[in-house]
Amino acid sequence: VNKMDKDNLTVVLHSKGDLRLEQRPIPEPGPNEVLLQMHSVGICGSDVHYWQNGRIGDFVVKQPMVLGHEASGRVVKVGSAVTHLKAGDRVAVEPGVPREVDEFFKSGHYNLSPSIFFCATPPDDGNLCRYYKHSANFCYKLPDNVTYEEGALIEPLSVGIHACRRAGVTLGSSVFVCGAGPIGLVSLLVAKAMGASQVIISDLSSDRLAKAKEMGADFLLHVKKEDEPKEMAKKVEGMLGCMPQISIECSGVQSSIQTAIYATRSGGVVVLVGLGAEMTTIPLLNAAVREVDIRGVFRYLNNFHLRIEVCFVLFYFYYH
Amino acid sequence: VNKMDKDNLTVVLHSKGDLRLEQRPIPEPGPNEVLLQMHSVGICGSDVHYWQNGRIGDFVVKQPMVLGHEASGRVVKVGSAVTHLKAGDRVAVEPGVPREVDEFFKSGHYNLSPSIFFCATPPDDGNLCRYYKHSANFCYKLPDNVTYEEGALIEPLSVGIHACRRAGVTLGSSVFVCGAGPIGLVSLLVAKAMGASQVIISDLSSDRLAKAKEMGADFLLHVKKEDEPKEMAKKVEGMLGCMPQISIECSGVQSSIQTAIYATRSGGVVVLVGLGAEMTTIPLLNAAVREVDIRGVFRYLNNFHLRIEVCFVLFYFYYH
Amino acid sequence: VNKMDKDNLTVVLHSKGDLRLEQRPIPEPGPNEVLLQMHSVGICGSDVHYWQNGRIGDFVVKQPMVLGHEASGRVVKVGSAVTHLKAGDRVAVEPGVPREVDEFFKSGHYNLSPSIFFCATPPDDGNLCRYYKHSANFCYKLPDNVTYEEGALIEPLSVGIHACRRAGVTLGSSVFVCGAGPIGLVSLLVAKAMGASQVIISDLSSDRLAKAKEMGADFLLHVKKEDEPKEMAKKVEGMLGCMPQISIECSGVQSSIQTAIYATRSGGVVVLVGLGAEMTTIPLLNAAVREVDIRGVFRYLNNFHLRIEVCFVLFYFYYH
Amino acid sequence: VNKMDKDNLTVVLHSKGDLRLEQRPIPEPGPNEVLLQMHSVGICGSDVHYWQNGRIGDFVVKQPMVLGHEASGRVVKVGSAVTHLKAGDRVAVEPGVPREVDEFFKSGHYNLSPSIFFCATPPDDGNLCRYYKHSANFCYKLPDNVTYEEGALIEPLSVGIHACRRAGVTLGSSVFVCGAGPIGLVSLLVAKAMGASQVIISDLSSDRLAKAKEMGADFLLHVKKEDEPKEMAKKVEGMLGCMPQISIECSGVQSSIQTAIYATRSGGVVVLVGLGAEMTTIPLLNAAVREVDIRGVFRYLNNFHLRIEVCFVLFYFYYH
Repeated sequence: VNKMDKDNLTVVLHSKGDLRLEQRPIPEPGPNEVLLQMHSVGICGSDVHYWQNGRIGDFVVKQPMVLGHEASGRVVKVGSAVTHLKAGDRVAVEPGVPREVDEFFKSGHYNLSPSIFFCATPPDDGNLCRYYKHSANFCYKLPDNVTYEEGALIEPLSVGIHACRRAGVTLGSSVFVCGAGPIGLVSLLVAKAMGASQVIISDLSSDRLAKAKEMGADFLLHVKKEDEPKEMAKKVEGMLGCMPQISIECSGVQSSIQTAIYATRSGGVVVLVGLGAEMTTIPLLNAAVREVDIRGVFRYLNNFHLRIEVCFVLFYFYYH
Repeated sequence: VNKMDKDNLTVVLHSKGDLRLEQRPIPEPGPNEVLLQMHSVGICGSDVHYWQNGRIGDFVVKQPMVLGHEASGRVVKVGSAVTHLKAGDRVAVEPGVPREVDEFFKSGHYNLSPSIFFCATPPDDGNLCRYYKHSANFCYKLPDNVTYEEGALIEPLSVGIHACRRAGVTLGSSVFVCGAGPIGLVSLLVAKAMGASQVIISDLSSDRLAKAKEMGADFLLHVKKEDEPKEMAKKVEGMLGCMPQISIECSGVQSSIQTAIYATRSGGVVVLVGLGAEMTTIPLLNAAVREVDIRGVFRYLNNFHLRIEVCFVLFYFYYH
Repeated sequence: VNKMDKDNLTVVLHSKGDLRLEQRPIPEPGPNEVLLQMHSVGICGSDVHYWQNGRIGDFVVKQPMVLGHEASGRVVKVGSAVTHLKAGDRVAVEPGVPREVDEFFKSGHYNLSPSIFFCATPPDDGNLCRYYKHSANFCYKLPDNVTYEEGALIEPLSVGIHACRRAGVTLGSSVFVCGAGPIGLVSLLVAKAMGASQVIISDLSSDRLAKAKEMGADFLLHVKKEDEPKEMAKKVEGMLGCMPQISIECSGVQSSIQTAIYATRSGGVVVLVGLGAEMTTIPLLNAAVREVDIRGVFRYLNNFHLRIEVCFVLFYFYYH
Repeated sequence: VNKMDKDNLTVVLHSKGDLRLEQRPIPEPGPNEVLLQMHSVGICGSDVHYWQNGRIGDFVVKQPMVLGHEASGRVVKVGSAVTHLKAGDRVAVEPGVPREVDEFFKSGHYNLSPSIFFCATPPDDGNLCRYYKHSANFCYKLPDNVTYEEGALIEPLSVGIHACRRAGVTLGSSVFVCGAGPIGLVSLLVAKAMGASQVIISDLSSDRLAKAKEMGADFLLHVKKEDEPKEMAKKVEGMLGCMPQISIECSGVQSSIQTAIYATRSGGVVVLVGLGAEMTTIPLLNAAVREVDIRGVFRYLNNFHLRIEVCFVLFYFYYH
């Protein structure tokens, strides 16, 4: 950290609508931490949402919070106990770090630990700044041929990976993705990379569907707000030639969740990625008697740990 | 089948409220079937429901149907291709028999096969009669020390077994059973037999709860119709000293399903056994972000196949 | 079946070395069967092995047996109970058909049913003939854009699919395939199609390794007969930069099985596809204390059922 | 810690055969640790083995090591960051504590972490002493009605629990336990508590078998050293009336492992708990073509975490 680098310009959200650029002191890494010089930090929809609304559900910005959680950077200093990283290493940052060794962490579900630290979720600071310290165990070295920009994209890909894992996507799966926004598209990419043989994707917007087509969707379902869920479910079956085993709901909209349930084959799975209202009215009886499981996803875990090669697989799918 | 036995008195439901005792011809078993002289046939709530209402959901009694599906009997004749049973064998009858070798059957989910035969589900005849033929592959020999009455009880036990399997109950599980009716009690028994360390059970009726206590429940939760689901969930946590990993919902009542979701630990499972209204309003967001899975059960499968010893384990729990 | 088609030339193995071309009567399909006019039938290594040796392990050719089990054909006649196929349909043939509804079939493991029928495994006849009848439930309709030749290839692909499923290959897996013969190559293809990020493959032959490279292998390990298993395991780790989570052993050779165990990461899986000697000496202690599971595969199941699109995914990988 | 308690008598193994009672300073707990006044510490076979042989496999006593890892005690001091325990709490001690947040820990397999601390495994000190400090996250509060002695027994029970979990024991399982020593008996108890309907247990000693009978074994198989594995396997099937789905091998003896493989039903599991020679000769082909999985166990994890009620379930089985 030379003199010039003393500059630690940081993007801080003070409260709803009050975003400021501030100088902050460069932090000192603890024994198990590393200090990073940030390179690429994506701006996620949630960052914008906090800025404009001051909250997401129960998470409320009550004190100044640094934004940013899709990030990569260069190690500039390592804590005394860190052995697997050294200054100069280029890394991707997993933004969620469990604080306690509780039952969730011990049993392989650290994403569900109630006391987890998570970048840019109030009150935890994010990494949209010049210098940032992070748990060394949650920084993952980038291979030489992965750029910082690609490294920062691992975070959003992780959401799709966790959704497809929870869904059990595998070779030959037929998958219905509801919603062709960023998370829907990532889920589509990951499902294809896991060997799904058919993916159908729905959206209100034909522009988004056109993008999905370009990214590998096999079938496009243009929906309108007033469409009947049961009718939409029949269309999905008609287009695929069978009911999909898996539906990945990325919109959070009640009618779309209903469609996903009706559309899914008996014994299949509906994964809920999109977040909607607190209470939702769904055809639970239909799901129950056909043993269609309903599974949520909360962020992700053990994805960065997958070795960074995964992103190649995905980029390969994207660009080819 | 001697002369005296030519009598095949049969309980036939002609339509809602119109139940008759009739003589029916003694059937001839096909190559893969056996003819049974029925011994014990339980009267299930669903038999009574069909009698009084003429339907359960989409299943409507449109033509005369023999009642009964909790049954045991003695083999009196075997089809030409049957090798594992012989005349004189005492058997329990699994009432669901898949008709087609479809994808559900091939992949180990024959209970979900849309064309499955199921005793006393319209339009399929049950076995509340003197002589009944059934697929030999779905008749299970009773050991000498199991009575016919116990054999007939395997069917209702199977519902609890399937529920507890879908829930993943195992040694040390803490389980919340909602509803202390017959299915709730069976789920309690099975959960205990699978090693659950703590079972809490709820009901509106203190008589039912007293029975549950007698059958091994560790904690009783007396609920009232007007109770708030979130409050009830907190009571469950307070009584157990932790949130249960598993909730088995046996009432089908909306507020009870809501309580089950709020009560279940993050990463846990809510199993829906009770059947309620077509549409249900639930805190789906709460379930999704805590990765509480919602799983239905449809009847059961591969339970009779567990070897009949299972019922001993259960009877042991019941009587000791 | 017109007059010309009365010709049912059939390849029959009478005993070791005694292969004959014979006319056989055209069979009549039973109620649940279809009569097929065969189009493409692959010659598998096992067909050749039976011809040259008269046996494989405990399976001995004691009476004339028709060869062939990698097959596709056209439906020319359907049994009375068949509803999902009609004359003219082009189908792939799954050669294993369970004969009994036993516990294996009921629980989703029909490939393990001891009484299963399997084409060209003594004493069951195969389908290297002009006309062949088969269970309609084990014939899978080919989409218009899949050729008969591709349809016949589904069978060998199925072995690789079953191996990769048993191994749990998924997005980001690192996989070590031992042996670059046909099954090793198929396993490589399938692993890649399931999202494996790194596949290393070993063989004695550099020609085979060159072929594997062409088909997508990330790393090649040229082995010699005298190589030390522990040394080879270290090489695998060195090349991958980590120990593979999964090893798929396709050679059946003792030293290669040993290498696979030493090479696999703690908590990982070794899948045994290659068949070797009856007794094998392995570092079982090493596997046990590192919780490296050892799993065999017997043929496959529920792969044809995956919808024929799977083969596209694979062909895509092969040709691109 | 009052004056009298300054005495910290400790059992230290200096090298093979050289066991000493020494005074050691009372340790100071770190921020996430607690200081315990030890109450009950079991003497495990491995403690005796280190004393008499100075090593177990690759673990060699090269410097003085405190013995003991089956322990319970009372918290006398808590580290600054500990919130869930306080002075006076009675706890059971889980002897294995992961040192690094590596991939094994993150994915729920901390027992496999290569750098794990484990009491009384060289070079890590155990807790056969008066005062001992331990990670607070790996101390589990005992309920009032569990004695310290019972608390110390949780550790050996954990081995049986981990074995039965890896085996997938559940309601109705038929289980073959090979060896009726302490671990075999614990496996028997746990299998029964998980709902196994039939357990058969083998041993060379009829005294041990008599003890197993008393503890709930359904069938006893007296074996001799010269018995043929295939013959023994047939006897197991004969006694049970079917092949067991699960075999739990607790002897580590080659012929017994062979018997376990031959005896296990197709599609079943052999779990290896007993540790034998480095290289073992087994009928791997037989296991592979019948898809009998071979799984090791290394210590245990997430068992103490099961809530202490589990031990009641087991004690219940033991005493009733």
